[in-house]
Amino acid sequence: MEEVKLHGTSYNLFTYRVIWALKLKGINFDYIEEEHSDKGSLIMKYNPAFKRYPFLFHGEKVISESMVILEYIEDTWPQNPLLHIHPLDRAIARFWVKFAGDKGHCIGTMYYTTGEKQEKAIKETIEMLKLIEEQALGDQENKFFGGEKIGIVDMAFGIIPHWLEVIEDIVGVKLLEPHTFPRLLNWVQNFKEEQVIKENLPNRDEMFVFLKNQRER
Amino acid sequence: MEEVKLHGTSYNLFTYRVIWALKLKGINFDYIEEEHSDKGSLIMKYNPAFKRYPFLFHGEKVISESMVILEYIEDTWPQNPLLHIHPLDRAIARFWVKFAGDKGHCIGTMYYTTGEKQEKAIKETIEMLKLIEEQALGDQENKFFGGEKIGIVDMAFGIIPHWLEVIEDIVGVKLLEPHTFPRLLNWVQNFKEEQVIKENLPNRDEMFVFLKNQRER
Repeated sequence: MEEVKLHGTSYNLFTYRVIWALKLKGINFDYIEEEHSDKGSLIMKYNPAFKRYPFLFHGEKVISESMVILEYIEDTWPQNPLLHIHPLDRAIARFWVKFAGDKGHCIGTMYYTTGEKQEKAIKETIEMLKLIEEQALGDQENKFFGGEKIGIVDMAFGIIPHWLEVIEDIVGVKLLEPHTFPRLLNWVQNFKEEQVIKENLPNRDEMFVFLKNQRER
Repeated sequence: MEEVKLHGTSYNLFTYRVIWALKLKGINFDYIEEEHSDKGSLIMKYNPAFKRYPFLFHGEKVISESMVILEYIEDTWPQNPLLHIHPLDRAIARFWVKFAGDKGHCIGTMYYTTGEKQEKAIKETIEMLKLIEEQALGDQENKFFGGEKIGIVDMAFGIIPHWLEVIEDIVGVKLLEPHTFPRLLNWVQNFKEEQVIKENLPNRDEMFVFLKNQRER
């Protein structure tokens, strides 16, 4: 058994995605919390392209970028699968993972901008949430994006259930309303009730203070 | 055997990626060329999130987004693999696929902008090419990104060998020089000499005219 170590930062969705996946697979690992300000040797050695945490160390191997790490975890430990076996289901999941990566930035932009830029980011966020509501969730009655079990798409969209709520409070908007996003809110509830998620989320109040301070800086 | 049909547009890297992968796997398919101007019913039905071609139809199944389609092709037809079997090799490949998707836009921006915006995009393109030269190719002596056989990363970076050259001509810059990008140019040569690529590339002169006209519009 090779040692598994996760280097990440606090209140960071990318880090939490990996924590959730490892916990779901029942993999023992050490978690090393890094400073947010650190863009030092580890970053420059292992991820100079994106300059960010987390890193998964598995024995001598190092993997970066959260969704790439999740595919690595899936390939390495097949138990409690994050992806279905059928190629079409896998493609649908990877499509939404790509969507979350390419379109999810607007939530961050909404959080750290003001004025016109923020207005634009709020609009983009609503558009993005609508696409998820209508296209990804559609008329399905499942608990999660991929069916009755939590999977890779739920983790990709992990910013919506906890982080977006805190950001809404900081920015002073309310985007996720039951009459406009009924399916998404239903999923948010299912997601938060899932054991591995419930037990591994940053403390809401502490995150509020942290994100508020970050924004003001 | 379910029918395989590819709907794409001319001179379009995303479409060519799928053509290369299908040809490499030896899959018979029909190619349906769509109008560039078309953002109609097919797009709105199958990819309202990104609003772009190509689509792969496989029997009743429809898959969109070129790199997602490539993973689908790999999952469906395992012959002549696009990805290695070992999880670490797969993770490295997926990292660079993500990099190509997230950072490759600057080539397009360089092509369709002018003035300061173009200057910025040229700088970003050089930075991106440097990361590929130093990090993705590093001190390896392989023919392709993943080893001696062409794979998913080569297809992800497929814009560099043919499209970038034409864009350099249109914009009037020369970024890929032997003294700054020796490994990348070596790869460009290997890529272009590969049978499946050589036989499936848009005509250079026609593409020049098409892209020059598009830009002026």
